[in-house]
Amino acid sequence: MNDDRLARYAKLIVEVGANVQPGQYVLVTADIAHAPVVRAIAERAYLAGAGRVDVDYADRHVRRSALLHAPAESLTTAPAWELARLHECEDVGAALIRLTGNPDPHLFDGIDPARIAAAPLEFVSESRRIVLGGKVSWTICAAPNAGWAEQVFGEPDEERLWEAVGVAMRFDSPDVVAAWRAHRLELKARAEALDALDLDAVHYVGEGTDLTVGLLAGCRWSSGSMTTEAGVEFMPNLPTEEVFTSPDRRRADGTMTLTRPLVMPRAGVLVEGLRVEFAGGRIVDVHASRGEDAVKAELGSDEGARSLGEVSLVDGASKVRAAGVIFHDTLYDENAGCHVAWGQGFPMTIEGGTGMAADELFERGINRSSVHTDVVIGGPGVSVEGQTRDGRTVPIIKDDTWVLATA
Amino acid sequence: MNDDRLARYAKLIVEVGANVQPGQYVLVTADIAHAPVVRAIAERAYLAGAGRVDVDYADRHVRRSALLHAPAESLTTAPAWELARLHECEDVGAALIRLTGNPDPHLFDGIDPARIAAAPLEFVSESRRIVLGGKVSWTICAAPNAGWAEQVFGEPDEERLWEAVGVAMRFDSPDVVAAWRAHRLELKARAEALDALDLDAVHYVGEGTDLTVGLLAGCRWSSGSMTTEAGVEFMPNLPTEEVFTSPDRRRADGTMTLTRPLVMPRAGVLVEGLRVEFAGGRIVDVHASRGEDAVKAELGSDEGARSLGEVSLVDGASKVRAAGVIFHDTLYDENAGCHVAWGQGFPMTIEGGTGMAADELFERGINRSSVHTDVVIGGPGVSVEGQTRDGRTVPIIKDDTWVLATA
Repeated sequence: MNDDRLARYAKLIVEVGANVQPGQYVLVTADIAHAPVVRAIAERAYLAGAGRVDVDYADRHVRRSALLHAPAESLTTAPAWELARLHECEDVGAALIRLTGNPDPHLFDGIDPARIAAAPLEFVSESRRIVLGGKVSWTICAAPNAGWAEQVFGEPDEERLWEAVGVAMRFDSPDVVAAWRAHRLELKARAEALDALDLDAVHYVGEGTDLTVGLLAGCRWSSGSMTTEAGVEFMPNLPTEEVFTSPDRRRADGTMTLTRPLVMPRAGVLVEGLRVEFAGGRIVDVHASRGEDAVKAELGSDEGARSLGEVSLVDGASKVRAAGVIFHDTLYDENAGCHVAWGQGFPMTIEGGTGMAADELFERGINRSSVHTDVVIGGPGVSVEGQTRDGRTVPIIKDDTWVLATA
Repeated sequence: MNDDRLARYAKLIVEVGANVQPGQYVLVTADIAHAPVVRAIAERAYLAGAGRVDVDYADRHVRRSALLHAPAESLTTAPAWELARLHECEDVGAALIRLTGNPDPHLFDGIDPARIAAAPLEFVSESRRIVLGGKVSWTICAAPNAGWAEQVFGEPDEERLWEAVGVAMRFDSPDVVAAWRAHRLELKARAEALDALDLDAVHYVGEGTDLTVGLLAGCRWSSGSMTTEAGVEFMPNLPTEEVFTSPDRRRADGTMTLTRPLVMPRAGVLVEGLRVEFAGGRIVDVHASRGEDAVKAELGSDEGARSLGEVSLVDGASKVRAAGVIFHDTLYDENAGCHVAWGQGFPMTIEGGTGMAADELFERGINRSSVHTDVVIGGPGVSVEGQTRDGRTVPIIKDDTWVLATA
């Protein structure tokens, strides 16, 4: 551990990621293996004027006992106090910081995938509503640890993982906060250029991939930045290299083949060699050389799991790509290339969406699910074209390079 | 770590300590350094049929940042959801398991004792009401860890600490659960013998100690066992070697000198060489060779902090004493000898007490405070006599040996 690096990382998370405001309530959600990063965040958040910093530490070994032995209903419900905490965060306009970086990715190996995929649906749905509702600021970032390093490198070399994370996080910049503010502006320019095209569909083409996904009229592209109702700008993901939107859940056809391994966000199961077939907006077939059961269990978890909630554009200039490793963590790996996600969509991608009820959003074409799983289909050799409503085809990414002009 | 020992310890905590029932909600409160014991408890609790096991992991480093930087009001209030969790535990009749064993006792050194002593009073008071109210079962036990071992032995020898804990916890018994059930019966017999005396006062005498504490008419002595309204017997402290009651908060006179160091339960500050003067039920003077400021800060925290909430009797047969070390943890060290506690008293020691409002209890003579700090005044050379309401003096402990006849 390098204390100076930890402190700079915490400053980035607090000032740019969650953008903690004076007096604000901060809730950090992390694994106990993330303690060094959690502690640096807590210290930095108080220095930024936080009114209180609470940490909700999880322990995957305790979770394992629950997966093995708990009554089924306790896997699909949350205690009332946990919902009360979520609502209190909304009421007071909290800053939510969630850390990823799985310290033991094989801990759930051999456990029934259906139990792993079980989730407290009401809680998950309220949680999504609140983080997208404009009251809270939030960010997800990673905490390097020995177990995660072992997954990436085959040995628990935490320092090597910190170096890779450092490339993706632009730690080499003399002022890392300023570097991220500049990067955010570049992504914003890409999103604005896409919005100006008023696309009807995007078409991903590469080896094993020929996928066309329909877009909603008037949908907006997001970059790595959101703003609360109170006007506080924050970055939901650190790092981020993408511009993305929610597609029309009813329109996706063709095939996609993943260009990176996937670690299922909830189950922690590694999936390799995944190929997915779409017809009429739904996933109709799935093959994988590893982890196929876990994917199928998740796709069966609710009605919306088989439709897309996100399409995303990333080119080869990605700093996550530059790090040169497979991180085995969606937060990082999705940013290594173009990707899509099955499951829950984003209300803010349509006009007035954040104020709409879930039913109305669904009616308009924004997908609804308790899951949201990003899968990377971009990389060298992959191109993306846009199809405009007036029938033109516009190149956006050509062989992994962004080609659409930005302001 | 020895997995078999951990599993046996967890079985004791779950079956005898909290006495977890099928379907019950279990909330474990621990430091992240306690993870190995927490995990064993969670596994065992599910095997006992627990409906759900949640863990509230604390991190003293995060607490340190709060003590250094947080606004004062955030030290004296709790978020609403934390109170909601407490009430949910009461409503569902939860089992509460709290782990002690400070992994870094010097972490708060140099921090303003008044900030360390600050507490969310409403939350603390509700918490005390609930654990003593008959709806929940609960137990406090320790989780050996390297930092705690370093405090005890001057080096982080966790194995040596486990051995000392093993003596105190009767791990050498072939059936540790049965051994604790038998020990519980012995303590119960002592409490019944004391109840039969109907004492008006107890008188502690030893080197530097000559203290008389008045008792309430009809007060009952407790042993290491309580029973919920639903009839589930549990042991609030593991280990326990004591019989105890709450005295009349208005009657304590004389001097006491601690025979063991004290680690302040909230502040974690080490106190040595403590001598305390009482007059008319109140602490009127305090001297210590170390940690005096922390004691004074706590005694100033509220009106009741200077009066006694507990008198307790332990003789030299104590297994905690047999372990032969100063544990630097009240849970253990108080059980090495006779002790008293300033601060909050116990409602269950008077008839109908658990159903009484705080004001009525106070009026009856049961002390009220946000603190409860046990200090040991017993050991070799210390004797305790009872003074009956009809004027007799009855020896209870003579030079550290229990002499009062039991059934």
